[in-house]
Parts: sequence; structure tokens; C-alpha cells
Amino acid sequence: MKPLFLATSNPHKLREIQEILELLGLAHAFRLQARAPEVEETGVTFLENAWIKARQVYQATGRPVIAEDTGLVVESLDGAPGLFSARFAGSPTDHRQNLNKLLALLQGRGEEARRARFVCYAVYLDDERRVWARGEVQGLIAQEARGNRGFGYDPIFLYPPLGRTFGELAPVLKNRRSHRYHAFRRLFQKLGMLP
Amino acid sequence: MKPLFLATSNPHKLREIQEILELLGLAHAFRLQARAPEVEETGVTFLENAWIKARQVYQATGRPVIAEDTGLVVESLDGAPGLFSARFAGSPTDHRQNLNKLLALLQGRGEEARRARFVCYAVYLDDERRVWARGEVQGLIAQEARGNRGFGYDPIFLYPPLGRTFGELAPVLKNRRSHRYHAFRRLFQKLGMLP
Repeated sequence: MKPLFLATSNPHKLREIQEILELLGLAHAFRLQARAPEVEETGVTFLENAWIKARQVYQATGRPVIAEDTGLVVESLDGAPGLFSARFAGSPTDHRQNLNKLLALLQGRGEEARRARFVCYAVYLDDERRVWARGEVQGLIAQEARGNRGFGYDPIFLYPPLGRTFGELAPVLKNRRSHRYHAFRRLFQKLGMLP
Repeated sequence: MKPLFLATSNPHKLREIQEILELLGLAHAFRLQARAPEVEETGVTFLENAWIKARQVYQATGRPVIAEDTGLVVESLDGAPGLFSARFAGSPTDHRQNLNKLLALLQGRGEEARRARFVCYAVYLDDERRVWARGEVQGLIAQEARGNRGFGYDPIFLYPPLGRTFGELAPVLKNRRSHRYHAFRRLFQKLGMLP
């Protein structure tokens, strides 16, 4: 198994991407290992932030690296929380505040205004290759938080095909449908490891 | 004429909003005066940034204040440049770099990917009232910069109904149709000064 670094300090992302590798039949191709990038996410797009993290870990290790950057985009709020998804309410530690702020902004608004998408940009970097891919999943911001699975905005992201929030879904149900799944599937397709 | 502060350090915005007041028949109601807000724009939405600027100038002057925050939103780039419109390429001083970065990101992409909108959030603050309004205008990112009128992203914002970029339009043509016009018209409607 080849070692593959994942540039993240988020244990939820490590767990989900490990499960996505399993769903894609790639879990035995890599020994995935998280490594926290020692760098600030100063990019002005999701893709820039993914590269910033990947580059730092690649420079520190000299080994193949994947990274991703993810956000929740609400059209009626002109893209918010967007790049500020992790610190929408100011604090990056109490994520419940982020959810509550978003719920408050959409208080009393109808379905059209509640349309949202999770987007994920995944990147791969080694000695020879520099590849990226994007994934998204569309849904609605729920009226209130439901479920305690997943992480981040999952409890308020309603996925209409299943009538549940991502916070209510068993991990395998989320990980087969998520923005992160689509981004990494396309990434490994571009790398020639999936049809 | 009542004094009305505009919380901005941008002379282009002062000029445009003055002209919008004239188009709205409100130029004689106010003596508009720009005042640079002494505060960083740390908001995570356009509306927060508009309030941050208005509040600082209101606290410093004690007089009625208007402010706005504006950005260019490209759907296919998940909202970029968005909140980072003024410093998309890193430097807030050489705006041409921002335009070139956006053109490069859309290089070779078709019309669907080039859809964009300018959004403007306008706010009003005095002793008694706290009112906000949003305006937008839809268009396309042009293949290359055209025209040297307006400011910011105007030379690459193609306005389909007139087949010209905002950089090619006479000021009165832009200012009758712009995101800024719509935002301030709605703001003064909410204030009861327009039907």
C-alpha cells in the first residue's frame, strides 16, 4: 500500500475520506494518513485553499498528498457562508453558533430562499502530477437542526431525495451521495485509477 | 438640505451614488458627503460589511449615514470573487490584476460558466432607523476587458440587454440599471422617500 497524506486537521474529514476510498474500492491502494497543514487558509476561492493545504504538506513530506476545501453555498445569501463556512459566527470552535446564525438569516424564508449546496474541491499533488476536481450536492436549509451524525452544517442540510438532513443519515448513506464523494471520485478518475 | 454621510473611501462610489440620487429625484433632499470609515471590513457577508462601515461613521459623527457593500458573484466559481472582489488577486491597489485573474479562471469556458451578477447591499442608519436593501444586476463575464468607464470589474461585466460592458456605458446608462441603483432605490422606498 502506498502512503498517501491527507492535508487536514479535521478528524471528521479523515474518517469520511477513508470511507469514500472504501466505497470507491481504493482503500487497499493507499495507506491514508492525516497531517495537519501548518499554514493559514488565505485563499480567495475554495480551490486555492485546497492547494495551499496540499502544497504545505507536500513540501514538508515530499510524499503524495490529497487535500480538500469545502463549504456551504446559499444562493439567496449571495454565496454565504461560503469560504467562511467554518467561522461564519466568528468562532471556529463552537460550530452550533454557525448553524444558528444561518438558521436566523433564513428565518421565515420559503423554499426558494433555502436552496443550498455543499461544494468540495479535492486536489492531488505529487512529484509529477497536480490534479483537481469539484463535487457538489444540492439541498435545502432545514427549518431547524435534525440529527447528530456527520459534522459541520450536516444537521441543517436537508437532502430532498431521502427527506433527511445529512445529520440524520447513516454515514454510508451520506458518503455515497456527498459533495466530498463526488469530488474524490472525479479526482481519482482524473488520476486514471477509476473508470 | 439635510447632511447625509456616505461611509466610503471610494470616490467612484461617491460619484455614482450622487448620480443615483439625482436619477431618483433625491439630490436636493440631501447634501451627500463621503467619509472614510476607520474600520476593517471583517464581515462574512456583504450586508455585515455595509453595517460595519455605517456603524463606525455613525458613531463618529452622530449623523445619518448610508453605506453599501458590493461584489461580483460568479456562480460557476461558487460565488467568487464575492466578498474578495476588491482584493481577488491579492492587491487592493492594482485592480487590473483582479480582472485578469477572473478572466484567466474562465478562459475557454462557455456562456453558462460566464454568468455573473453584481450585488449591492445598501444600508441607512440614524437615531431612529436601521434599514437595508439589496440590488443586483445580471450579466456575463466578457472574453476580455472593454471600455474604460466605471470602475472595478465594469470593463469585463457584459450587460446583455445593451450588448456592452459596464466599462463601455455612459455613466447615466450604467447608473440607471446597476446593482447600486436598485439597492439605493429600494433603500429610499423603505425609508418612505420614494413610492
